[in-house]
Amino acid sequence: GPSACRGPPVGGGFSRPAFLQLTSEELQLADDHAGRAVQSPRESRRRLPWSTGYAEKDLCFHYWGLFDGHAGSGAAVMASKLLHLHICDQLRDLVDILQDSSPPPLCLPGILPSDALPRFHLEKAVSHESLVIGAIENAFKRMDEQIERERMTRLVAGGCCALAVVYLLGKVYVANAGDSRAIIIRNGEIIPMSREFTPETERQRLQFLGFLRPELLGNEFTHLEFPRRIQHKELGKKMLYRDQNMNGWAYKRIEEDDLKFPLIYGEGKKARVMATIGVTRGLGDHDLKVYNSNIHIKPFLSCVPEVRVYDLTQYEHCPDDVLVLGTDGLWDVTNDREVADVVKEVLMDYEPNDPLKAWAGWLQCGGGPCCPKCPVLPTCCHHSLSGYSSHSLPLSCLKGTVSQACVPGGGAGCCFLQSTGAGRRGHLRVMCSSHLPTGPPMGPTELDSTP
Amino acid sequence: GPSACRGPPVGGGFSRPAFLQLTSEELQLADDHAGRAVQSPRESRRRLPWSTGYAEKDLCFHYWGLFDGHAGSGAAVMASKLLHLHICDQLRDLVDILQDSSPPPLCLPGILPSDALPRFHLEKAVSHESLVIGAIENAFKRMDEQIERERMTRLVAGGCCALAVVYLLGKVYVANAGDSRAIIIRNGEIIPMSREFTPETERQRLQFLGFLRPELLGNEFTHLEFPRRIQHKELGKKMLYRDQNMNGWAYKRIEEDDLKFPLIYGEGKKARVMATIGVTRGLGDHDLKVYNSNIHIKPFLSCVPEVRVYDLTQYEHCPDDVLVLGTDGLWDVTNDREVADVVKEVLMDYEPNDPLKAWAGWLQCGGGPCCPKCPVLPTCCHHSLSGYSSHSLPLSCLKGTVSQACVPGGGAGCCFLQSTGAGRRGHLRVMCSSHLPTGPPMGPTELDSTP
Repeated sequence: GPSACRGPPVGGGFSRPAFLQLTSEELQLADDHAGRAVQSPRESRRRLPWSTGYAEKDLCFHYWGLFDGHAGSGAAVMASKLLHLHICDQLRDLVDILQDSSPPPLCLPGILPSDALPRFHLEKAVSHESLVIGAIENAFKRMDEQIERERMTRLVAGGCCALAVVYLLGKVYVANAGDSRAIIIRNGEIIPMSREFTPETERQRLQFLGFLRPELLGNEFTHLEFPRRIQHKELGKKMLYRDQNMNGWAYKRIEEDDLKFPLIYGEGKKARVMATIGVTRGLGDHDLKVYNSNIHIKPFLSCVPEVRVYDLTQYEHCPDDVLVLGTDGLWDVTNDREVADVVKEVLMDYEPNDPLKAWAGWLQCGGGPCCPKCPVLPTCCHHSLSGYSSHSLPLSCLKGTVSQACVPGGGAGCCFLQSTGAGRRGHLRVMCSSHLPTGPPMGPTELDSTP
Repeated sequence: GPSACRGPPVGGGFSRPAFLQLTSEELQLADDHAGRAVQSPRESRRRLPWSTGYAEKDLCFHYWGLFDGHAGSGAAVMASKLLHLHICDQLRDLVDILQDSSPPPLCLPGILPSDALPRFHLEKAVSHESLVIGAIENAFKRMDEQIERERMTRLVAGGCCALAVVYLLGKVYVANAGDSRAIIIRNGEIIPMSREFTPETERQRLQFLGFLRPELLGNEFTHLEFPRRIQHKELGKKMLYRDQNMNGWAYKRIEEDDLKFPLIYGEGKKARVMATIGVTRGLGDHDLKVYNSNIHIKPFLSCVPEVRVYDLTQYEHCPDDVLVLGTDGLWDVTNDREVADVVKEVLMDYEPNDPLKAWAGWLQCGGGPCCPKCPVLPTCCHHSLSGYSSHSLPLSCLKGTVSQACVPGGGAGCCFLQSTGAGRRGHLRVMCSSHLPTGPPMGPTELDSTP
């Protein structure tokens, strides 16, 4: 659980870095002496791998989140307070590995040359980037499990779409589970950083599950899709349908079973899973059922985000480039181009040095120790994550900023990622109207990052 | 079955067109008098829908196929002889609907105004294009079922990748089930018309199935992916893994169950499903098992193609634009750009009017009745499909050309879609070397389209 983020790790709570080249017996011993946080390599193994030194540096981590609640505010509020801690928790063991320039070890603890396994002719190379993606994916799973576990004691109601952004080692990771959307506006060009997960975009995954596990449909739904309800008197006629394998449509003779309600039904914003929910990924919703029935929706929902990566070091950025996160409430009434135009218009109203021109800052160079070459978030807004502020992990620590917006009851939310020079903390502008203002933005809303 | 393509339809084998506005009782009656192929609308319903007249025109259909066999030639040969008949069979009932400019009826027979159902506020619009896609998808399923049914009597061995191209009403439909590839080269630009289905590209679908139906893994495989084999002595260590939900990688503690062989294993060309097959879609393979076991591979394979559509009327084409189909044997040793360069080089060696410059013809205007405005395949190579040659369906018929290449034993095959002015039949250049020639192409190979 994320509580591991809050205190110094105890025996078994952390692992020794690979470059110490400990045997399993030595590791066991090191575990038993948890108090001795620092271990040196033995005399005979002093040839440390290249870049071992970097492993002792802090790893800077910045985080933004947007949580759009439905059917109650509990899940959105809880996720906004804890998701970043789960991400920390998943990243913690990777701190050394991510800062080591050699490929991540496939197995931990690493293999000693003397003790080496036979070489495998099929051995997959795994990138550092894919470890961060895996960490974020698993953090969402752990968050969802925690909501499930504690939903009775903490009275966590409903569910939420979660859109989280992690900055780490020069790259921005955008993780989306739901129908919120992130775009980067770079020199007027729009770069989509997410896609929406709805009954329409995930139709085949849901139908495949309903086909393989018909008991989840509770004898009331059919996994087939039809373009409208079928009436009993139409039995024997031919109706258009799609199954889990099809992208096109075809006619089939209507049978008794086809009179059940389609698992996926409706079009666009009206599309629903089992006539109940219009979004297919997110956190929470463990108690959501089909109205007046005992059929659970949760098995059809996924808490796993799709993570897209944007390498900040690969592009030239202007001061007015921004990353925009918005809930469906925003994108329902506007589109990427309109948002880009409004952002441009608004930013033009400010003098280049106006501190309110805050959103312009997020891509400016900070020159922090985490990313010496990469022009990213200003270091002035670095502050230690709660749980990491007062102590270090054995050899390195994660530091960073946390900013988030929570729209507990649903509706339209939009945040412009930004950082000002004004404080030690990242700022986040939250606009809770369903339209973007055409005038200057509201003053920055400083959200407390302490859970 | 495709035999329906070969003879005139009998009672129940066809349906009356919607514009006749027959009630269900009248339809029943019409069915009982199958001999009376022509029905007129009743006096009171003489207001025919716009474009009813077009429904009596022939529908021109052109077809190319490429079949790459493995583990025996049977499936490839059978599919090359019959797949186009299955496609005809699926398209047959759509002939009127596709030529009617109004949206396809959701239900057949159509609803009379007097007899109308209540209007449904949720009613999905289905395009003509998606009916053709559905027809092709279902034709692949029927073909696969036929191979399964007849594999004992016809001695159909092995399986095959199938790449089929259908031209209909101004659009090219490219259907791919396997690891062959189609590209369009338009004025030097490459437009991918397919993607390859391999254990790597379909990993998550396969893992999801293995996760939901563990009995299909026969207690020998795990649905988790690992970057290499795990040895028994590594129990308790941590290993990188991916599950069916993940795109990234993470570490997990190795348990007893993880010592099973991964469902998906190996990288690139060496990736295999259950250590057996490197392609995840296609026809046949019903008897394929994991070596020395009773575990069937077929449940993990899909016979359903992905269909991409290219609207010929939306683009300007030069005489040297071509559509290239190739098996993996071709694409393993070359890439899209090299193929485009070779094609350009080869075509330059011909005088514009050289009949051997055949492949240049495929996008030229035919001015046929099927597509009055659309500059497509020359009508000179129209000929009736077998089964449709000697008689008409009640109100309309499908006509067209069939060309195909079959690489029964696997290996490299490459066809350039083309049509010459030389004969009544479409031609197909088949190069069975694993390299594209840098000199002029071999003479066109005329393949008989009669099954």
